[in-house]
Amino acid sequence: MATKTVTFSNRISYVTLGVDNLQRAVSFYRDGLGLATKGIVGSEIDNGAVAFFDFQPGLKLALWPRKSISAECNVPLGAADASGFMLAHNVANTAAVDAIMQQARDAGATVVRPAKEFGWGGYGGVFQDPDGHLWEVVWNPHDGSAD
Amino acid sequence: MATKTVTFSNRISYVTLGVDNLQRAVSFYRDGLGLATKGIVGSEIDNGAVAFFDFQPGLKLALWPRKSISAECNVPLGAADASGFMLAHNVANTAAVDAIMQQARDAGATVVRPAKEFGWGGYGGVFQDPDGHLWEVVWNPHDGSAD
Repeated sequence: MATKTVTFSNRISYVTLGVDNLQRAVSFYRDGLGLATKGIVGSEIDNGAVAFFDFQPGLKLALWPRKSISAECNVPLGAADASGFMLAHNVANTAAVDAIMQQARDAGATVVRPAKEFGWGGYGGVFQDPDGHLWEVVWNPHDGSAD
Repeated sequence: MATKTVTFSNRISYVTLGVDNLQRAVSFYRDGLGLATKGIVGSEIDNGAVAFFDFQPGLKLALWPRKSISAECNVPLGAADASGFMLAHNVANTAAVDAIMQQARDAGATVVRPAKEFGWGGYGGVFQDPDGHLWEVVWNPHDGSAD
């Protein structure tokens, strides 16, 4: 019986952010940004301490120490590099961009690009979480999915 | 009239990977992993060249040069660091893990952790894309969302 070969499909199940201080990162996302989490779990296992946050269906955000990622994935523990990736959080209007950029600032984020209008018609700003990970907060008038 | 303050919500709209060679990265995800894309767009704009891939509803993957991220977000262009984040691709069974790890290897990925059973009952491996970004391919028997 022929079986269909399974191939990579367009699905991201977890986005895991490497952090230098797990408690600090949990506080930022839970207390500062207001996201629900059970907090740090798995501390009884070597490299197991991690915190999860539910995002849209099928997607979770995980916070995991960079040294655990390095050890478990056999990659060097390098110096953190902010230019390696970013996450975008699309919102429904420019006021939402401003409100969330202010919320992030109040939570201790570093605003690396204050909100501005883009040439393509959108509006957005960029902050870094306590570990330097970039979040762009964007209103995209061509995208109705963020209402 | 009181208006409800908008706050950060549990939504990731884009995951953007910083790449050193955009054409190479597009080839890996399009030709190697088989994901659909319109290819590189925006090349006529400074720091605009980017490629998008649709993922689950509301989520896109973007490939954008690290130097563009650095320039547009006002962060240093550091040395790439594999320990800063990772993405997970959950699949429906162990055979799917093996098939996709092989597909990634055939596409030129570096397998940094061959697939193995985890103490918690799952099964998975980890590869790096051409820019060193980590993807974990996982079967999680406690998660029915990857079928």
